[in-house]
Amino acid sequence: LILTKGERKRIRSLQTKKGRLKEGRFIAEGIRLLEESIRNNRLPEAVYYSENLISENGQELIKRFRTLKVPMHMTSRRDAESISDTHTAQGILGLFAIPSIEFASISRYKRILLLDNLTDPGNAGTLIRSACAFGIELVLMTPNSVDPFNPKVVRATAGAVFACPIAVAPIKNIAAFKKNNRFQLISADPYGEELNMGLKKVKEKFILAIGSEAAGLSSEIVSMTDIDVRIQHSPKVESLNAAVAGSIIMKELFERFSHRRQK
Amino acid sequence: LILTKGERKRIRSLQTKKGRLKEGRFIAEGIRLLEESIRNNRLPEAVYYSENLISENGQELIKRFRTLKVPMHMTSRRDAESISDTHTAQGILGLFAIPSIEFASISRYKRILLLDNLTDPGNAGTLIRSACAFGIELVLMTPNSVDPFNPKVVRATAGAVFACPIAVAPIKNIAAFKKNNRFQLISADPYGEELNMGLKKVKEKFILAIGSEAAGLSSEIVSMTDIDVRIQHSPKVESLNAAVAGSIIMKELFERFSHRRQK
Repeated sequence: LILTKGERKRIRSLQTKKGRLKEGRFIAEGIRLLEESIRNNRLPEAVYYSENLISENGQELIKRFRTLKVPMHMTSRRDAESISDTHTAQGILGLFAIPSIEFASISRYKRILLLDNLTDPGNAGTLIRSACAFGIELVLMTPNSVDPFNPKVVRATAGAVFACPIAVAPIKNIAAFKKNNRFQLISADPYGEELNMGLKKVKEKFILAIGSEAAGLSSEIVSMTDIDVRIQHSPKVESLNAAVAGSIIMKELFERFSHRRQK
Repeated sequence: LILTKGERKRIRSLQTKKGRLKEGRFIAEGIRLLEESIRNNRLPEAVYYSENLISENGQELIKRFRTLKVPMHMTSRRDAESISDTHTAQGILGLFAIPSIEFASISRYKRILLLDNLTDPGNAGTLIRSACAFGIELVLMTPNSVDPFNPKVVRATAGAVFACPIAVAPIKNIAAFKKNNRFQLISADPYGEELNMGLKKVKEKFILAIGSEAAGLSSEIVSMTDIDVRIQHSPKVESLNAAVAGSIIMKELFERFSHRRQK
């Protein structure tokens, strides 16, 4: 019933970037995320839960994991709270392997979202979720962005972290990849072309780059831009939220590309 | 230089809903929010700052507030940190009166966003920001939603809290208002009509209702719905983030209504 000090320490270390890099694992916490892991056929290596904290839905989930032969570890309430990242622990979390994506293999994808310099975990997770929703095949992140397997990012993806490949890559590799594979780079810019006009120029393979609200995109990414688009809005606000802006552009791209497929 | 115990207590009480209701005031913290208060001509009643914490931009802002005759209170670093809601205090915050909006006066607005049962502060703030960006004239919130003057909501609005009227009203008042003033109520629903088809039915006065991701809209709001719309997305994710979904619908409504105005 009680975790050893070593186990507690190991799981807690996965709440930090350093620990995740060392172990090659990340944590997804709560019923909804774990249900999405099953739906996406991305089972955890182990599940930790506390009988005292979980709800009826949690009990149901534990039964499903047992049936799927996932190693289950019952812990005390105190342990469950101590390894949780949230204030209101749902009493269940899973340990997952961080999928390794060979950068050399990504040329098969045609629709890519690039998060550059994006440090807000909520925005990053929401963008990954929208990417998955709107037909993006790969999410690339620059090393100056928040770690995609940070617990706050994972939570904000609402499970999309299990549905869409995500890779971290240095800008110079992304630049070489773009050039060699003839991708068009789209970025959002308040002085760019009106969104629908700009997106008419997108041919087949694109990278949509979204930066942080405060600092924008890195200058290297700006210099690689082929199409600058602007989302028309009232001057009452200075700008849109980064996740909202990115999602609106992805939705438009999704509509264009689904129509093309239907033809 | 040192705040009295009473002052510290009063300011800290505004971080809670109870304190805000009692005092009729709220706090906006950080340079960006305070700059937006000036841009929107909604000056604070008082500003508290610490010389030891603020940046050069902060110094600039303090000069502008002085010119505008805003009462300025210099505090110790320790006081500034103790009254701050964030871990990384920027060393400057403003006290603002909560604007009171007469519910009787709102019939002059034609485009309304209704947040019902929406408890996530980040989503609520982002929706208020998008509302302002996309021509919504009033944001209504039901009492079961997060308080719009909660510091996390205020931060997520990125200043839109100063640009757009926001009122909290019980569902029964909203229902009577809708009926008497012949508004169409639009809500998002995975089984609704395709977005663009649905929005064609919107005539002039509308209320767009957005609920929480987990619990959806209250049954009373669902029963008042005139137009159900669905944002097409891949089945890879179960749903979109509430702020993203609401913002996409508002952006479409904005385009429709700006085109109409141009005709």
